[in-house]
This record gives sequence, structure tokens and C-alpha cells, in this order.
Amino acid sequence: MHQTILNHRSIRKYKKEPLPEHLLERIIEAGTRASTTGNMQVYSIIVTTDPEIRKALVPCHFNQPMVLEAPVIMTFCADFNRFNKWCRLRNAHPGYDNFLSFMTAAIDALLVAQNVCLAAEDSGLGICYLGTTTYMASRIIEILELPPAVVPVTAITIGFPDESPGLTDRLPLEAVVHMEKYRDYDEEDINRLYAAKEALESSKAFVKENSKENLAQVFTDIRYTLKDNRTFSNSLLNVLKKQGFMNQ
Amino acid sequence: MHQTILNHRSIRKYKKEPLPEHLLERIIEAGTRASTTGNMQVYSIIVTTDPEIRKALVPCHFNQPMVLEAPVIMTFCADFNRFNKWCRLRNAHPGYDNFLSFMTAAIDALLVAQNVCLAAEDSGLGICYLGTTTYMASRIIEILELPPAVVPVTAITIGFPDESPGLTDRLPLEAVVHMEKYRDYDEEDINRLYAAKEALESSKAFVKENSKENLAQVFTDIRYTLKDNRTFSNSLLNVLKKQGFMNQ
Repeated sequence: MHQTILNHRSIRKYKKEPLPEHLLERIIEAGTRASTTGNMQVYSIIVTTDPEIRKALVPCHFNQPMVLEAPVIMTFCADFNRFNKWCRLRNAHPGYDNFLSFMTAAIDALLVAQNVCLAAEDSGLGICYLGTTTYMASRIIEILELPPAVVPVTAITIGFPDESPGLTDRLPLEAVVHMEKYRDYDEEDINRLYAAKEALESSKAFVKENSKENLAQVFTDIRYTLKDNRTFSNSLLNVLKKQGFMNQ
Repeated sequence: MHQTILNHRSIRKYKKEPLPEHLLERIIEAGTRASTTGNMQVYSIIVTTDPEIRKALVPCHFNQPMVLEAPVIMTFCADFNRFNKWCRLRNAHPGYDNFLSFMTAAIDALLVAQNVCLAAEDSGLGICYLGTTTYMASRIIEILELPPAVVPVTAITIGFPDESPGLTDRLPLEAVVHMEKYRDYDEEDINRLYAAKEALESSKAFVKENSKENLAQVFTDIRYTLKDNRTFSNSLLNVLKKQGFMNQ
């Protein structure tokens, strides 16, 4: 298990082979064993294999070809709809139309997603997270016909790997760990902690390709810009309102 | 690995034994292998062992004794502070002061948390998630001295188990899985999907203890009430504003 975790690579190329049903059930069952607030299980997993629906999802995920090439897309949703319906049928009055409840359900969904990914990788499958899910939640809701109180939080492609990329670099452990309390970073810390990353040949190539001065500018000016982030923030907050999670 | 996932139980009683340092490092390293948006690693892990700091954290986690009894509390934070500092030192202009960026960082932090939990359980340790982290984020920020652009998203207790509880019940798989698109639930679905849960002796005892008509009312009237949820929603949204994530 530990090896499975340490060997994680995002897989973006998949064999055409479909996912055997018993494997699909096995990894979803693993998902449901994740911790869940108050054992409410306020999440849903949408398993999409239909090529027509996946074709519709492709632009939501910025036209990444793997969305069509992988045999399965799983969309993990914060979901209070089922729980609310249960409450109402039992003469109980659900109070889950607010931001805290969205966060509770989103946390549930994300822990399930990571369990599914690790169970999949442990079975020889490959996965890749689609960070675009929160950006394009509004359109995903339409395509997957998500009712009120349901919001997509993340998605993954999943299938048998047709590539074996190397491990991705990470910052040194001391960059992300704080003992006892938060210890803020000074200039020297930042220089030391990012030195190895900045020195990678892949980073240098990335800077050159994008005609930037350094790696940080590739992130701020090209990959994750203020303009895009603000646009998608407004869109996501509107989704939360529309799906009924902003009544506080 | 699959067995580790299927055997998960939340552990609330711990031996006094501290966590050996090599084990702590091993599970944190496993955390950092989780997928992270654009490989930005926009999270931090605060590892708290000091009994004085844990004593201060106890009320944040609704006085659960395990917060003091477990040898370690780990608080997982959405963290753009480190990344922003790096950008500014490189003459790059970070655009991560918005809600989408908070969600991106929260997702990062939660995938790391689940990796840490599974690596810990795989090494014979026990964990329990503290859902109270989002409720009491404001006070946790003070105690752990979290700077702007850092928000606690979840926390866990961790240590050697001193109890071996049974597996917790889960809804049948069909309750949480939707094939292709979302299929909404009708009354018959809800009755069928919740029947086993409602019939559990533990559920019946819970209803009786709380003098309610049924299990759903225990959730809505006692455990997760509208009043509390609204209070904590406002508090969490204020935290996001204060930490600089609501400029869109």
C-alpha cells in the first residue's frame, strides 16, 4: 500500500480496454470506506463511460484528449440532495442549504475520490485528476443533470495505463511541514526551498517555451492567471448559490 | 493496500506511546505524493505534539478528549502563502486571492490528508478526522498562528490505537453511484436505500437516547442543526475574507 502511494503518477494515456465491472465495483467500494462526517455520506460518484456524454464533457476539461480516450470518467460530487430527501420524508427539517454544509460534503467527496484513486492504482489502473471540475462546474451540472444540493468537486480519468511517466518532483518535506505552529517563510527560506525545482531541466524548458523570465511567471502569467481565477471564482460562487448552498 | 482501505475505522482512543520520528516522516512523505494542481503543492501540514498547544486546540474540536490523548494532531491547511511569497520574490504577480484558489488549495490539502491517513493505517497507526476544523477555523488560525492565505481545512488525531471498534455501516453502493448521469431518487428509492441503516440497533438506540421520532431527526435537530450550520457558515466565510480568498 505504501508503495502504491509512493509510486503515484498521473496517467494521461490509456489503453482502449474497458474497465471490468468487478474492478469498478471494487474501487468504488474502497471509496465508500473513507471517513465521512457523521456517517452521512453526503457525496455521489457519477461514472461516465458513454462516448457521447464524454464528448460533451471534453470542453469542460479544457479539451484534454484523455477525457475521451480513457474508458471511464468519474465525477465526485458534494451531494446533500439524497440526505435532504431522506430527512423530508421522515418529517425532519434539513438545515444544509449553507456554505458549511457545502464544505462538509466537498470534504466527504474528496476523501472518497482519493480512496478510489489509490484502490485503482493498487489494482494496476492509472488515474488523472481533472482540476478543471471546479472551473466548469456550471456546465458539468447541465451535462450530468445534477439536481439542486449537488455540486461537482473533482473528477478523474481512469483506465489501464498506456504510458509510464517518471515521478513528478516535489518540494522538500520541510517546505510543507510545520512543527507545533506555523513558521512563516523568509526570503532565504523561499530561495532554498524552491532551488531544486527551479534548477530542473524541465522547469528551464518550460520558462523558455513560454518566453518568461522564470518559473513563477509561467504560473502567474500563463497557467493560473488572476483574470481566469476571478472569472472561475465568480462562476463557482454562482453555482453554489444556484445549487442552494449560500443561504447563511 | 486494498485491505488497509477496507479496514478503516476511526480511532478515538490511543496509547500514550509517542509517534516515532521515522514513522512521522514516512507518512508525511506519503502525503506529498498525492496529486496536486499544477504541482503547486498549495497546502501545509501543521504537526502539533506540544500538550499546551493541544490543550488550546481542545475547545476548537468540541472538547473531544482524543485531541489531548492522541500523541499528535495534524492540521491540514489550504496554503497559498508560500507560493505567493515565491512569486513575489521572482517578480511574478500572484492572482490567488479568490475563492477558486481557496478551493484549489483545499482540494490539495484534502488529498494529502487522505494519503497521510492511509499510510498511517498501513503502518499500524489509527486516525480520526476532526470535522470541527472548518467550524472553528478562526480560532485555530489564532492558535497555530496561520498567516494570510492559509486556512485550516481538516485535522486528524493520530497515534497507536487503544481500541478496536467494528466497521461502521455504509449505505448500499447503489445509493452513492450513478451510471452515466445523475439519476434522482424517488420516495421508494430513499426508503429502500436507508432501510438497513434505520433498522440497525445502534440507530434505534440513538433515536431513543435523543427522544426523537426517527434517525433523520437526530441529525437535523441534534447533531447538525440549521442554527449551528448557519453560524459556522458565516464564520467560515469571514475567515476566507480575512485570509484574503474572497476578492473576485
